[in-house]
Amino acid sequence: MTSEATANIGVVGLAVMGSNLARNLASREGNTVAVYNRSPERTRLLLEEHPEAGFVASETIEDFVASLSKPRTAIIMVQAGKGTDAVISQLTELFEPGDIIVDGGNADFHDTIRREKAVSETGINFVGAGISGGEEGALKGPSIMPGGSVEAYKTLGPILESIAAVVDGVPCVTHVGTDGAGHFVKMIHNGIEYADMQLIAEGYDLLRYVGGHSPAEIADIFVKWNEGDLESYLIEITAEVLRQVDAKTGKPFVDIVLDEAGSKGTGVWTVQNALDLGVPVGGIAEAVFARAVSSHPEQREAVQESVTERPEPVDVGEGFQDDVRKALYASKVVAYAQGFDAIIAGAKKYGWDIDKGAIATIWRGGCIIRAQFLNRIVEAYENDPSIPTLLVDPYFAKAVADGEAAWRRIVSTAALSGIPAPGFSAALSYYDSLAAKRLPAALVQGQRDFFGAHTYKRVDMPGVFHTLWSGDRTEVETEGSSH
Amino acid sequence: MTSEATANIGVVGLAVMGSNLARNLASREGNTVAVYNRSPERTRLLLEEHPEAGFVASETIEDFVASLSKPRTAIIMVQAGKGTDAVISQLTELFEPGDIIVDGGNADFHDTIRREKAVSETGINFVGAGISGGEEGALKGPSIMPGGSVEAYKTLGPILESIAAVVDGVPCVTHVGTDGAGHFVKMIHNGIEYADMQLIAEGYDLLRYVGGHSPAEIADIFVKWNEGDLESYLIEITAEVLRQVDAKTGKPFVDIVLDEAGSKGTGVWTVQNALDLGVPVGGIAEAVFARAVSSHPEQREAVQESVTERPEPVDVGEGFQDDVRKALYASKVVAYAQGFDAIIAGAKKYGWDIDKGAIATIWRGGCIIRAQFLNRIVEAYENDPSIPTLLVDPYFAKAVADGEAAWRRIVSTAALSGIPAPGFSAALSYYDSLAAKRLPAALVQGQRDFFGAHTYKRVDMPGVFHTLWSGDRTEVETEGSSH
Repeated sequence: MTSEATANIGVVGLAVMGSNLARNLASREGNTVAVYNRSPERTRLLLEEHPEAGFVASETIEDFVASLSKPRTAIIMVQAGKGTDAVISQLTELFEPGDIIVDGGNADFHDTIRREKAVSETGINFVGAGISGGEEGALKGPSIMPGGSVEAYKTLGPILESIAAVVDGVPCVTHVGTDGAGHFVKMIHNGIEYADMQLIAEGYDLLRYVGGHSPAEIADIFVKWNEGDLESYLIEITAEVLRQVDAKTGKPFVDIVLDEAGSKGTGVWTVQNALDLGVPVGGIAEAVFARAVSSHPEQREAVQESVTERPEPVDVGEGFQDDVRKALYASKVVAYAQGFDAIIAGAKKYGWDIDKGAIATIWRGGCIIRAQFLNRIVEAYENDPSIPTLLVDPYFAKAVADGEAAWRRIVSTAALSGIPAPGFSAALSYYDSLAAKRLPAALVQGQRDFFGAHTYKRVDMPGVFHTLWSGDRTEVETEGSSH
Repeated sequence: MTSEATANIGVVGLAVMGSNLARNLASREGNTVAVYNRSPERTRLLLEEHPEAGFVASETIEDFVASLSKPRTAIIMVQAGKGTDAVISQLTELFEPGDIIVDGGNADFHDTIRREKAVSETGINFVGAGISGGEEGALKGPSIMPGGSVEAYKTLGPILESIAAVVDGVPCVTHVGTDGAGHFVKMIHNGIEYADMQLIAEGYDLLRYVGGHSPAEIADIFVKWNEGDLESYLIEITAEVLRQVDAKTGKPFVDIVLDEAGSKGTGVWTVQNALDLGVPVGGIAEAVFARAVSSHPEQREAVQESVTERPEPVDVGEGFQDDVRKALYASKVVAYAQGFDAIIAGAKKYGWDIDKGAIATIWRGGCIIRAQFLNRIVEAYENDPSIPTLLVDPYFAKAVADGEAAWRRIVSTAALSGIPAPGFSAALSYYDSLAAKRLPAALVQGQRDFFGAHTYKRVDMPGVFHTLWSGDRTEVETEGSSH
């Protein structure tokens, strides 16, 4: 093991993601990669298995730091939370002003804001970088969402660009914004991913139990859809999953998998933060809730025992497949519109200068939601960077309008057939809420004024008003806010 | 002003809620009420306007404390947050072990847990009490949800019971549980209130724009509904609001109110905490989101401009009114079932021994969601305290089954007619998710295993599995968790 400063980049934490990222770095021209893991066993294993990488390995964090050339740059790939804090504190002690600490884990962006503040006070740069694409992405080319200072990105950017996925010659990495911006955008990416997966799952469910198609037939349908607007990694792998046959039973794979979906928490974070920001994200929330419902077997069993009669699936005709496709696409547009609304609101609240088009650009490759579709979002923000919602971009407006009647039929069919379609329904309700000339929110304001004197505004004059509901029911103008 | 210890209870903070609560206390036999407000102007005003109350007023917090007999009991009614912390710190310095500090504001229950821990270390009791019913409730009889020690409730309970609303001879107050339990339950109350209001608003919207009824006609319909299962304070006041005519224009009041609904944050808290607890609360979340959508006029205007063609309302017949009533009732049952699930999960996580039936009992009067309906929940938990969801209680199961076909027709009608019904739809999807023999969550697990090696369980054998998707696609058993 060495202590000479020969490596231009280092990786701390060599579990699968860290090892793969280190191998990816090592495979690129010009990089010499230092590696360190708390337990040296893992380091030795990595060196044995991948001698071609030419790793510079250390058994102590001090040797690891000494093996980095200046400005030192280290990417932390350990479990989010206390483990990350411990490594940051070690590196902060050993690094010098101008060096760069990168947290490549799935950190809560609030933690990233806190850490960036603390570390940057020492003159060391701190970059919270969201890395999407799973184990394979880490190895072959992820989508990378780094936050932090512009200064740090000057050194770090070229290295990240060398390992990121590339689409149309453009690497899937950009400087997202200061401090927590990168991890915030990664969180929203994951929230959108939840929605995307749930919508595909609802489409499958309808094709299966209303359309009467087998998993293999639905795999064929998805392969066909993957040639059109819906082209995406998730549609592609869904077809693969649906085509899989279980070797033990000969049954379709999807039928032998227990139908209780797990989650790692970033979907929950997305909805919680959108709620803080006042951004309605029903499409994402229903996806998170759908997983939660599925994971309450005691409730499901009890209800299935209690409900003796289930509705018959509605009779559907030739056009059903295409209706599902259109409903899926329109709902997907809504989920992405909501996700970008959350990015805009987050950027405003936390003071980040986020280029929405650039985010859509770096999501085109390397990450789970990668799709040609994202080019349409890039174009929408190119046409009008301050567009109030993606739903009014001419391309998306037309796409939704073209699919609208089908979308309505599908939500109706699902309701009548007893097939849960929370994602499709929430997306349609959201669209109809935005399109409605009048919302019953007026009645809610009336109720709130009645029981809590919360006041209201009028449609026909400025001011804030209250009706004396327990008095003579005349209206008085007040100084309070109507909210 | 006095310093003799003549008052058995004190109130700090004399804004409307505090003044009304103090007057309520003073009106009950045996109470002498000490009052204190940071600015003495407000105290003087209260004394002038209500000499009948016999308040013992102080201009300093020291005199206020001296005016209380032991064990001293003071209810803090100041703005939640820093104001509350300041008063707690003053009282903690002046009080003695065995005295009782009550926070009657709308505190975040996490703060209440923190405060109870800090205060109780001094030997002083701290009680976080949710108080519902608004200004009128505070004056005439609220629903009160106190947390804290059993010991403190022995002294405080009788005083609170004397001022609470009373239904069938039972005061609407109970010892909810230790530390933050009271404020937690108050938060869930408010979340349910959001859902209840939204569902009523959706019912109105459908009767108006699909059924073609005027606000005055809908007021009549609601009056009629208020004689059946839907009987509740919220239905009652909604009829009043719908009957109101605007004096300035002669138009229905509901038509001159700006349709942008405000909120105070407890709905958001409910959903955020339910997400933390893994409890799906789509019925409540959609109500919170509906208010958020309504409050984005820039997005609504843009979409209304962009969407040129809106669907025609579906033709509905005689049975439509009754269908809406049944859909509303079934959706309401779902919202309450979700709210109680959140209470159960919260109690488990935070170590509270909460009597669900007692909570339903104290919500029957004094608070915004008061209704006879709550007796059905009391009975459900009497029949089976560990019922996995209220939806399988025989009464509720039958109520939902009776309304199910109507509920499906209404969600279908709303979708086809372009009327947003996010609450009705989310509730039906939730019900259908619980009732489904198989959920597409199995497909989601397959997707997650494909892109992230997240593993899955099988329906036909124990263990945790992973398919080698990028290899030969055989299945291997793993030691990881499937979540």
